[in-house]
Amino acid sequence: MSKNFADKLIEAIKAKNAPICVGLDPNFSKIPKFIKEKAFQDREKTPMACAANAILEFNKGIIDAVVDLVPAVKPQIAYYEIFGHDGIWCYEETLKYAKARRLITIADAKRNDIGPTAAAYAQAFLGEVQLGEGEAEIILPGFDADSITVNPYLGWDGIKPFVDEAHKYEKGIFALVKTSNPSSVDLQDLQMKDGAFVYEIMGGLVDSWGANEIGENGYSLVGAVVGATYPEQAKRLRQLMPNSIFLVPGYGAQGGGAAEVAPCFNKDGVGAIVNNSRGIIFAYEKMEGFGEEQYAEAAREATIAMKKDLEKIF
Amino acid sequence: MSKNFADKLIEAIKAKNAPICVGLDPNFSKIPKFIKEKAFQDREKTPMACAANAILEFNKGIIDAVVDLVPAVKPQIAYYEIFGHDGIWCYEETLKYAKARRLITIADAKRNDIGPTAAAYAQAFLGEVQLGEGEAEIILPGFDADSITVNPYLGWDGIKPFVDEAHKYEKGIFALVKTSNPSSVDLQDLQMKDGAFVYEIMGGLVDSWGANEIGENGYSLVGAVVGATYPEQAKRLRQLMPNSIFLVPGYGAQGGGAAEVAPCFNKDGVGAIVNNSRGIIFAYEKMEGFGEEQYAEAAREATIAMKKDLEKIF
Repeated sequence: MSKNFADKLIEAIKAKNAPICVGLDPNFSKIPKFIKEKAFQDREKTPMACAANAILEFNKGIIDAVVDLVPAVKPQIAYYEIFGHDGIWCYEETLKYAKARRLITIADAKRNDIGPTAAAYAQAFLGEVQLGEGEAEIILPGFDADSITVNPYLGWDGIKPFVDEAHKYEKGIFALVKTSNPSSVDLQDLQMKDGAFVYEIMGGLVDSWGANEIGENGYSLVGAVVGATYPEQAKRLRQLMPNSIFLVPGYGAQGGGAAEVAPCFNKDGVGAIVNNSRGIIFAYEKMEGFGEEQYAEAAREATIAMKKDLEKIF
Repeated sequence: MSKNFADKLIEAIKAKNAPICVGLDPNFSKIPKFIKEKAFQDREKTPMACAANAILEFNKGIIDAVVDLVPAVKPQIAYYEIFGHDGIWCYEETLKYAKARRLITIADAKRNDIGPTAAAYAQAFLGEVQLGEGEAEIILPGFDADSITVNPYLGWDGIKPFVDEAHKYEKGIFALVKTSNPSSVDLQDLQMKDGAFVYEIMGGLVDSWGANEIGENGYSLVGAVVGATYPEQAKRLRQLMPNSIFLVPGYGAQGGGAAEVAPCFNKDGVGAIVNNSRGIIFAYEKMEGFGEEQYAEAAREATIAMKKDLEKIF
């Protein structure tokens, strides 16, 4: 057994004493006005490029405010894709900035496709890109995220390319198993012929996909997304997937609290990282005493409050 | 009933007399050398930008070669994301070029997420992006594709935002139901408690999600991805989803032929569009008499051959 992504993540969680991931979901309408106004003053840039600059500025403020408190950030790529190639530039710069500040990055992209196409996604997010051949060979990093979320509906051959790249570069993946949204019941909570639920079947598959990739701490580089909003299902999945780190969305704005995320952890207090996006990055909207100008300070306070809340579990 | 995306697609298929979609999956290693060499001569551009230029040049050649033969193209975004923001610029330009040549565009992105995030993806791919508010309001198109593929593992609330945007802008979506890859059996072919298979359950769900969006020809703006490699399952899904247009991958390189795609059509010969990516765009590799320099001519010949092959069905 050698060190893998799970070991790096577990060490980072222990070093910060916080199983917390800050979700960088910069919904443009909620970005403070003073940041937008400054970004849009650059008349040489297109509106899309100005918007991308505003988001990057916002993200840097959040990252600086929480960098000593949390081990990881999770930029959700939809909020960047909305600004086209300028948005993707901002996504790249956000990942670089987080990396420079020694945070672990989780690219929340939920990518999925058949094998050859999944290989392209895996290279783009986790690996390297090869341009030219022979003497003209150029090899460049892609987004170079530490990990990526993936959707497992297509089965193993669509996941394997991500596992291969993750193995090669000490990176990781998180496969959707039980998602936090209300409609996740539509398919995920249906019952199979043998009595198991779809989320249990998927949990078993994801567990098997990561079985050859266990690190020093006993965890696989193949993790699972398990929503905080379904504690009963999480409890069952924790039994079925003892070696997977759970990435847990649904805390805060979606309704989950310490009690709801508790079943996502193993008995040793390890094995899960809880994400909070809106509840931290837009905390200024709901916390008394903070205006838009104090969005970063509010994010810091919200992170400290979440840390205290999660301490109830252990 | 008013005209919807399905009507536009059906009319375009009839006008070209070809239920064929050309998949623009520009795997960089297979792009002809003469295109790459020319693109990389621009020393002021980064390697990623040169690669993006090479792909755009390649795509334009393919589009010009098939524009009078087929109604639609389907650029697979993974092969663009691999070049970061430059790749996404190329994706945007490819969509614009196809649109200018009056082709229907299918953004093959298989996006998926919980509601608020799915809304950001839906705006990015199908709708408009709002920057600023009040007097400073700026509204810009996003990728402005005519349709997008989506992954339905998260259920209805993750799909609804795409349907809403599609409804608003006369656009469409194709939800994965039975994918063409070998491992699609891992989950999709498992049997439920009531005897139905997962792909049947999903077919029923997708059918219901599009039930309020039926156009003049009787087809919904919510279509389905059904692989050519599973004709038995396609036959069953055609019964379960009479109002969905099937986007059919798996023809050609993946092994499907006319006999395999036949069950995807309704009895009137309508209701499906068959995609071919590698078999057309890289036809030069396998067709005698064509070198790299003739990649576009080879693509045209391969498209004509596919058209003849599919005529066997009707």
